[in-house]
Amino acid sequence: MSGAAFQPEVKFTAVDGGVTAPHGFRAAGVSCGIKASGGLDLSLVVSDTVASAAAVFTTNLAKAAPVLLSREHLAQSGGLGRAVVVNSGCANACTGADGRDHALVMAARTGEAVNCDPSAVLVASTGVIGVKLPIAKVERGIADAAAQLSPASGAAAARAIMTTDPFPKESSVEASAGGRTFRVGGMAKGSGMIEPLMATMLGVVTTDAAVAPALLQRALKAAVDETFNAITVDGECSTNDCVFVLANGASGVELTEKDWPLLVASLTAACEPLAIGIVRGGEGATKLITVRVSGAASNDDARRTARAIANSLLVKTAVHGGDPNWGRLVAVAGRAGSAFVLEKAVVRIGPITLFTDGTPYDERAPEAAEYLQGKEIDLEVDLGTGGQGRSRMWTCDLSADYVRINADYRT
Amino acid sequence: MSGAAFQPEVKFTAVDGGVTAPHGFRAAGVSCGIKASGGLDLSLVVSDTVASAAAVFTTNLAKAAPVLLSREHLAQSGGLGRAVVVNSGCANACTGADGRDHALVMAARTGEAVNCDPSAVLVASTGVIGVKLPIAKVERGIADAAAQLSPASGAAAARAIMTTDPFPKESSVEASAGGRTFRVGGMAKGSGMIEPLMATMLGVVTTDAAVAPALLQRALKAAVDETFNAITVDGECSTNDCVFVLANGASGVELTEKDWPLLVASLTAACEPLAIGIVRGGEGATKLITVRVSGAASNDDARRTARAIANSLLVKTAVHGGDPNWGRLVAVAGRAGSAFVLEKAVVRIGPITLFTDGTPYDERAPEAAEYLQGKEIDLEVDLGTGGQGRSRMWTCDLSADYVRINADYRT
Repeated sequence: MSGAAFQPEVKFTAVDGGVTAPHGFRAAGVSCGIKASGGLDLSLVVSDTVASAAAVFTTNLAKAAPVLLSREHLAQSGGLGRAVVVNSGCANACTGADGRDHALVMAARTGEAVNCDPSAVLVASTGVIGVKLPIAKVERGIADAAAQLSPASGAAAARAIMTTDPFPKESSVEASAGGRTFRVGGMAKGSGMIEPLMATMLGVVTTDAAVAPALLQRALKAAVDETFNAITVDGECSTNDCVFVLANGASGVELTEKDWPLLVASLTAACEPLAIGIVRGGEGATKLITVRVSGAASNDDARRTARAIANSLLVKTAVHGGDPNWGRLVAVAGRAGSAFVLEKAVVRIGPITLFTDGTPYDERAPEAAEYLQGKEIDLEVDLGTGGQGRSRMWTCDLSADYVRINADYRT
Repeated sequence: MSGAAFQPEVKFTAVDGGVTAPHGFRAAGVSCGIKASGGLDLSLVVSDTVASAAAVFTTNLAKAAPVLLSREHLAQSGGLGRAVVVNSGCANACTGADGRDHALVMAARTGEAVNCDPSAVLVASTGVIGVKLPIAKVERGIADAAAQLSPASGAAAARAIMTTDPFPKESSVEASAGGRTFRVGGMAKGSGMIEPLMATMLGVVTTDAAVAPALLQRALKAAVDETFNAITVDGECSTNDCVFVLANGASGVELTEKDWPLLVASLTAACEPLAIGIVRGGEGATKLITVRVSGAASNDDARRTARAIANSLLVKTAVHGGDPNWGRLVAVAGRAGSAFVLEKAVVRIGPITLFTDGTPYDERAPEAAEYLQGKEIDLEVDLGTGGQGRSRMWTCDLSADYVRINADYRT
């Protein structure tokens, strides 16, 4: 842990409970009838006391109504919040004036149900774009969920935000450092339309540490950049993405500016498994791919190339098929827009170097093909510039099932 | 034809012959054993006299040896050329010093066979990256092809440059304007790893007009920008892409700076069907999609968004599945990086407006689904900025067959 000489050592212990693992949080997940399947489709997470609140939102210019409203609420409250309400099955995006009204109703009903001002409610929706919310159903769902709030219902809340996700994503850790102990929990959804810069994904993070709103906002951004913003399934960025965090202080531990490394590490510890979970559960995914780029002129250059590799259909289909076609990695690195020196570049699939010093080692292809039979694949490209820039991203392979899922999403 | 008041009207007539349709060109396509299948894999196009020559090359920083050599030859000769030699089945990319030697050998043998300096030979290779050329086979192939050169062999030459292409791409037109008549012919290959900015595609264009090298270079760039650079199959840009043009003057017609509109229109007339042919024959493609973006703040903005839509997996899979999921068009337009005003944006699938004035018209979805059963699909997005920027791109749908083709390309 270089550079952390003045920081107490942090120990993370996995605990159960997801968003309700931290003290002073309750949650619920109910079915209110948005999904024709009758599956859980309304999720509520509530802090017993007013909490610091922060969020990272999609950069898409076509922002959904709940995204715009949640952003307004954080500004109005000065970064305080009590509750996060999420419906799945309908994104409430591109729904005109009705969309705004429906998001307002969700905040109002939730505020009434948990006894707080509507501005202390963060609202999110995920699902099909351009379809209106069945708001009467959602109102009944909010009342039901409020009646069922429980510190044991993190798992139900995580299920109720799923759309095409094959499994729920939850995580929770207990952080101990210098005699102070607090918890961070989280849940996330997302499967397709996933790319860095926030995609059709939602995340809710809770912690019983006390953190001032402005610090919480900066720390969330830092943690998200290395987790949710370092994944891609299909290069898309949706209208609805957001990650919320609530910090209620119920542990009695206060984290301040001097605890920055601990705070970011703790949020990251909760977010990283959620982010990797989204990739593992990517639409049609059969393999988790970790892309590492080094030898770049800058970290930005490295990230740009890592993102291009992680989004390359040719790379993702080659990994799917177990084809050690390293030439595709060179081709993507060459067109990614970052400095690249072919003669000094190095390409590795797992531990096997297939190209270095301008020379291909195609005789090692069978060994690489064997490696690609695994379920967790490392791809590494040194861009050959001699620079220190590096980046890591996670993605999944591209299968025929991805096409089937997305060709038939609505029809 | 506004803005062309001082130009004679141009009449284009389709003619047979591809690259050998213009006078004074001969071609050949032979099998020299690079492809295990025994298919045609060596193509030669020769002008009877020294011709002006120009080219557009891949922007990929990992340029293949033949790309680098052809660029050098054009610089050495001052834009003159006699022959284009192309092998398929092996890209001669990432092949180190041997790759350079092999490209030099291809130029030398071709120069000997057609009696010209090696610097008057343009060389291209296409196929798998990182595998060495079987140069002895290629040398024999060049001798065979030179012996078979014929003004009737444009079709064989077009077949011999194919890799995963499902059909050859040829075009040829006769241009008549103000009593002057000349011809332009062309051939192209490309199926996967296709995206604007030149991809794993090759194109060879011939004309019997006389055009000075510098003018020819500018006109080729202009024609390519609106044709080969306006297509995408999978967003990739390869190590080997190039489009060559040879202009030998055999028609007796000279085109100069004042004939710019005629020159560009003629080259475009030959290139556009080749470019659209590449998309129609895209790996796994079942539908040709024309993406039109209007109402953009600039043409560059429009092109950026058109490209993002044309490369979106979610758009391409939705069209494949006949799903009128117009929300995906909004989502891509919102994240493409161009100015976008959701409240004033308009989305059309074919003639059917599905979103306008911030309001979805989802009741028209069945009509749009019916339209999507066709084989030629128009998608149109007005970005709502009130600007005059517009762009058009061609792409294809994404099918499970794309995945199958690319998961198994080498293994």
